[in-house]
Amino acid sequence: MIGKSVPRVDAYEKVTGRAKFTDDMVPPGCLVAKVYHAAIGNGIVKSIDTSEAEALEGVVKVVTFKDVPDHCYPTPGHPWSVEPAHQDVADRNILTGRIRYYGDDIAAVVAEDERTAVRALKLIKVEYEEYPVEIHPRKSMYGSHPPIHFDKKDNVLNRTNFFIGNVDEGLEQSDTVVKRSYKTSMVQHCHLENPVSFAYMEKDRIVVVTSTQIPHIVRRVIGQALGIPWGRVRVIKPYIGGGFGNKQDVLYEPLNAFLTMQVGGRPVKLELTREETFCNTRTRHAIEYDLTAGVDKEGRLLAKDMEAYSNQGAYASHGHAIAANGLTAWRLQYACPNIRGEAYTIYTNTPVGGAMRAYGIPEAAFAIECFMDDIAAEIHMDPLEFRRKNLIRGYYEDAYLKPIAANSNGIFQCLEKGAEYIRWEEKRKEYAAQTGNIRRGVGVALFCYKTGVWPISLEIAGARMSLNQDGSVQLQLGATEIGQGADTVFTQMAAETLHLEMKDIHIVTVQDTDVTPFDTGAYASRQSFITGTAVKQCAEQLRDKILAYAKTLLPKEETRELSLDHGWILAGDEEAISLGALAQECYYSLTNSSVITAEVSTQVKKNTIATGCCFAEVEVDLKLGQIKILHIINVHDSGRLLNPQLAEMQVHGGMSMGMGYGLSEQLILDEKTGRPLNGNLLDYKLMTALDTPDMEAEFVELNDPVGPYGNKALGEPPAIPGAPAIRNAVLHATGVAFNEIPLTPQRLIKAFTEAGLIGKEGEQHV
Amino acid sequence: MIGKSVPRVDAYEKVTGRAKFTDDMVPPGCLVAKVYHAAIGNGIVKSIDTSEAEALEGVVKVVTFKDVPDHCYPTPGHPWSVEPAHQDVADRNILTGRIRYYGDDIAAVVAEDERTAVRALKLIKVEYEEYPVEIHPRKSMYGSHPPIHFDKKDNVLNRTNFFIGNVDEGLEQSDTVVKRSYKTSMVQHCHLENPVSFAYMEKDRIVVVTSTQIPHIVRRVIGQALGIPWGRVRVIKPYIGGGFGNKQDVLYEPLNAFLTMQVGGRPVKLELTREETFCNTRTRHAIEYDLTAGVDKEGRLLAKDMEAYSNQGAYASHGHAIAANGLTAWRLQYACPNIRGEAYTIYTNTPVGGAMRAYGIPEAAFAIECFMDDIAAEIHMDPLEFRRKNLIRGYYEDAYLKPIAANSNGIFQCLEKGAEYIRWEEKRKEYAAQTGNIRRGVGVALFCYKTGVWPISLEIAGARMSLNQDGSVQLQLGATEIGQGADTVFTQMAAETLHLEMKDIHIVTVQDTDVTPFDTGAYASRQSFITGTAVKQCAEQLRDKILAYAKTLLPKEETRELSLDHGWILAGDEEAISLGALAQECYYSLTNSSVITAEVSTQVKKNTIATGCCFAEVEVDLKLGQIKILHIINVHDSGRLLNPQLAEMQVHGGMSMGMGYGLSEQLILDEKTGRPLNGNLLDYKLMTALDTPDMEAEFVELNDPVGPYGNKALGEPPAIPGAPAIRNAVLHATGVAFNEIPLTPQRLIKAFTEAGLIGKEGEQHV
Repeated sequence: MIGKSVPRVDAYEKVTGRAKFTDDMVPPGCLVAKVYHAAIGNGIVKSIDTSEAEALEGVVKVVTFKDVPDHCYPTPGHPWSVEPAHQDVADRNILTGRIRYYGDDIAAVVAEDERTAVRALKLIKVEYEEYPVEIHPRKSMYGSHPPIHFDKKDNVLNRTNFFIGNVDEGLEQSDTVVKRSYKTSMVQHCHLENPVSFAYMEKDRIVVVTSTQIPHIVRRVIGQALGIPWGRVRVIKPYIGGGFGNKQDVLYEPLNAFLTMQVGGRPVKLELTREETFCNTRTRHAIEYDLTAGVDKEGRLLAKDMEAYSNQGAYASHGHAIAANGLTAWRLQYACPNIRGEAYTIYTNTPVGGAMRAYGIPEAAFAIECFMDDIAAEIHMDPLEFRRKNLIRGYYEDAYLKPIAANSNGIFQCLEKGAEYIRWEEKRKEYAAQTGNIRRGVGVALFCYKTGVWPISLEIAGARMSLNQDGSVQLQLGATEIGQGADTVFTQMAAETLHLEMKDIHIVTVQDTDVTPFDTGAYASRQSFITGTAVKQCAEQLRDKILAYAKTLLPKEETRELSLDHGWILAGDEEAISLGALAQECYYSLTNSSVITAEVSTQVKKNTIATGCCFAEVEVDLKLGQIKILHIINVHDSGRLLNPQLAEMQVHGGMSMGMGYGLSEQLILDEKTGRPLNGNLLDYKLMTALDTPDMEAEFVELNDPVGPYGNKALGEPPAIPGAPAIRNAVLHATGVAFNEIPLTPQRLIKAFTEAGLIGKEGEQHV
Repeated sequence: MIGKSVPRVDAYEKVTGRAKFTDDMVPPGCLVAKVYHAAIGNGIVKSIDTSEAEALEGVVKVVTFKDVPDHCYPTPGHPWSVEPAHQDVADRNILTGRIRYYGDDIAAVVAEDERTAVRALKLIKVEYEEYPVEIHPRKSMYGSHPPIHFDKKDNVLNRTNFFIGNVDEGLEQSDTVVKRSYKTSMVQHCHLENPVSFAYMEKDRIVVVTSTQIPHIVRRVIGQALGIPWGRVRVIKPYIGGGFGNKQDVLYEPLNAFLTMQVGGRPVKLELTREETFCNTRTRHAIEYDLTAGVDKEGRLLAKDMEAYSNQGAYASHGHAIAANGLTAWRLQYACPNIRGEAYTIYTNTPVGGAMRAYGIPEAAFAIECFMDDIAAEIHMDPLEFRRKNLIRGYYEDAYLKPIAANSNGIFQCLEKGAEYIRWEEKRKEYAAQTGNIRRGVGVALFCYKTGVWPISLEIAGARMSLNQDGSVQLQLGATEIGQGADTVFTQMAAETLHLEMKDIHIVTVQDTDVTPFDTGAYASRQSFITGTAVKQCAEQLRDKILAYAKTLLPKEETRELSLDHGWILAGDEEAISLGALAQECYYSLTNSSVITAEVSTQVKKNTIATGCCFAEVEVDLKLGQIKILHIINVHDSGRLLNPQLAEMQVHGGMSMGMGYGLSEQLILDEKTGRPLNGNLLDYKLMTALDTPDMEAEFVELNDPVGPYGNKALGEPPAIPGAPAIRNAVLHATGVAFNEIPLTPQRLIKAFTEAGLIGKEGEQHV
């Protein structure tokens, strides 16, 4: 089953509309909640008057920051730690009177219907005391009065650094030293389904049905936020319409849980609008990088230094971990004896940075891969040759990364495939000396991506299986299907290890923390690797129990080795008993019945590295400032492909995201208030089908010895290399090295003008 | 926790209306199905025209008996057997063109709403060919043309018998031989919630949410009825509004499942009206008994013989097992060297007999306990003395019943308590020679009741537990809460064995066959005994795993014995680590994390016998034919009480049912068609609060060595002894021995007139 392009197990449900998402499960008569957001970017609420809102017919309850329990809590979807030093930063309450960004949550209304709730919001009167707003991290890090959080006088949430060798000595020994700065923009996930949940009470417990990637973590954080035992919270996760990391954060579930408690446990629904999703959930961090490197005469890296300044926005969320993850990328891919990395994560008065597909690596990779091209240009070397010269050979390992075995490294094969597709050698020469308004170029960018979070954090996954009476198998996991195809590949894994057909494995797609095995959820491209390990172990346990039970049914003198094969128990090569018949015996035998089930909860102490690259060929219209992508290919080294068709779809989706990141997407904030100026799907320029060229996805399939089925990360990596590959192609086409994305027409026109490629009025010079 | 009257865990949910029953979970836009029932009592459908119904706007689908798959299936809630000889009788299809009783299911309509569905039913045109209707088993057993089922020329579904010793010889040796006949009526369960379900499809699987006692069995039977693998069926059981055995049968779930398949998996709801519930679900069998017994001079039973004729109605359901169970009661309680029992279960053209609280024993006990009084009267012995003389002493065991240890037998203490309460000796004398219109009497009746179905059938139960992060425990069972308090006592059991508080055990009340451990469900008063065994084993397994994990957290030199105590792990007598802290370690330890869960699937090869008695004092108004119950008490030997308050409530409910059985309840059928004449809650005389006297419940608490917590059956037994105790009290009061229930005014007036106690015009003679 592994390696086959079987159809998605949820395909039929989703295309027919039968699949149940959170909103499909809202009970009749459910109350509706709406959040009152701050209309200033920094300050405090001096007074709040909710009396008119409360008096409105149909309003059931109005709560403000004065009503919520006083328990600060963290929101990121990380495993909890029993050691305080490893716990996430708890810097937010369910509602607040201390406004830290435009849109901060002050109060909430619960009403009989949405219209009434919206009307009630307008009747709430708030007086503010305003403080100056700062949206730039490099300014905010010098402090504000008052500080954004705690007594952090520098507004620095976290500083992470590492040293390998001696960078200063390395730079001194270098023949060429290059320094550059790069900057990424704040972007939003733009999943189809906005965050939505509904909550109600059962006995003295709170149930929250929510569109999340991390139900077990949401359970814990609600417990923390409300200050109640975590066992009194139940979280249910139906099908979800995408997350991309935004739903790897605990967003409005604690407020929703609090609200149902305020109305006697009646069900309350809380759904964000698209505008709220842009402003009040999470974004990809805007990060500024200062990079320095030294190379010898042959172009070998002798020293490299990264300083990163990450704009955290108003609350901690995943911030510290995102910037730190970027440093890992800096350390791993290009061999160098002397490396330094330092990352600052800085509170500002902007929407909050959180997890987004590839978790800090697209930001870092943009800087690194631009830098690699810029160094190569400085020393007049082909950028692909420069990379090949400096890439780590063999397997990935350093002081921070401990694979249990030599992981596979297919980056050289990836580069070969990509270069061949894009006709690198030929095009690099062909486009070397262009003139005219239309110019073409080819570019490349690489990445490496750690699979899972071990050893930085905990990796644990659970799986449960039970044998049905017909010989089919129930498979239950705490890991979540979030659109990526997880349910399909887990089904394939179980079928593979149990030698069954896809139709014989019934996966339970809904997670319910009351009954679902514990698993931390969908992030870090961990599930096929970490949860896959649990599925494999669980299937092996089930298989062993089946074979042990089969022994009791077979003649005592049967000594041949038993095995499973397509619904049969084989003794040697012969069909001894069908799995269905065995199942019926284990359910209904009057002498020896015991239903066969298996359950594992496995800590996974291993990791591996996925790599890959993107090659792009672009055509730049200098006067229009427009980039047309002629060809683009991602080549991935993700170990053995579990399902080639699903893998290809993952890559296509990621490439689209990477192109948007490079070309058009950015959440623009008002300098004075931090208010998003384009926080809606009309003004925020997401890639559409019309903007998207044909995409190529290729793979280098090396069997990774660490992965449970030879596999490693593929969920997030496709989003990484597109933006720098396009930027490097534009550099090749025009000679202009952009250091900031997105590459909008405005930015291009300005740079081409400064470079003298076009006149100030858009006239071409040369 | 065991033995404490803790409040029901579902009390708050149920009194506030927050508890979710099936109808509360019906999704918006759900289609509605209605069944087209036959308007004749026996015959075939010659033609059916559904074209007008199909043309009605809002009708989505009309199906008839011609459309359903040709798979006969059984309906009773019994474990499946892999041996065909032990399988239930499969004699029905989802819809039928062969009408076997008035109301048989011919067709079904699926419409956008209920009103349209009802209108569509009226547009269906059917032509019948009619056969003669026979509603009396002793006539039907001589056959019909055509037979009601198969080629059964005598319409006898089943004949069960047994012999101990030689009854003929025993009767010859007797000094007195007594022969009597008794007759019970057809009654209905009258649970609050009518049968209701809704079904939809997920992928290629069918989901049925239904008000049932037996979700795992419903799953299997739907698979059989549709001819699809059982693993492709998922059954969900929410809170239910009572069952009393009617929902220990697979009623309309297969039709509901079939209907959703006919409309592309759209959700379809199928809810019966009260009238349909009376006519088209199940009833308690009307049974006729011919009893013979011989006693010696001392009043000792030397021989006893029972012949039973059970009216099965149109389909097999539980029939064969009900009559057979009555024979067990005949064998067990009163010691006798020579016993014969023979039971005929006979198809007729009436509503179908199925399981109802105490499963054939109230019927048999009515006959047996009336007979004991009638024998005692014949030999002029006090009926209590006669019983004491003949009761089995010590524990219950015979060739058919194999307890694994000596079960407890508290019947003598029960009689003592009951006699004392009712002041037996005094009242028997006081009421010996009454005159006048108002007369009083006291009566007694006994019973014994086997707990669970082993060794006649399979007993298997499953339980799963997992430790939450806060040290609380999830408890998940396939056994069902049906109003009896199962969830509460299971919670108590888990708390008892784990030394936790009630609030620390979170029981999952909804069964979902996809994730719920396998258990056959609520019947045979089995759950606290059989499932209780699984809960205990599972809790012990969880405890052992907790203590084993605790060992890894404690200093190596710690050698004291570890135990659990109120959320702490004790080393010796000292608190070593809290369960909450241990739980957090097992979830989140970076060195050794594995969430602690436990699961068992246990076959239980044991049984025991619960006993008890009812004493009643009545006042009879001869002229009005009215019985007033002055005092009534049930005394139960049910082993150790798990929850005395719940036990008392169970007894009160059962006593009410017993009084209704004795005094007023009967489903009256039209002789010509078999149509119920009073199948609604206005005409069917259920006991109301006004009819119900104060009831006393007492217990003899012997620790039963077989039960997991010293407990044995209490769910069903309370319904058994009321009717015969009242009848015997009336006999004491009036000297008239009624041989048929209910004791309606009409029946009393007739008998008192015949006995010369009142004149033909209702005038009193004496």
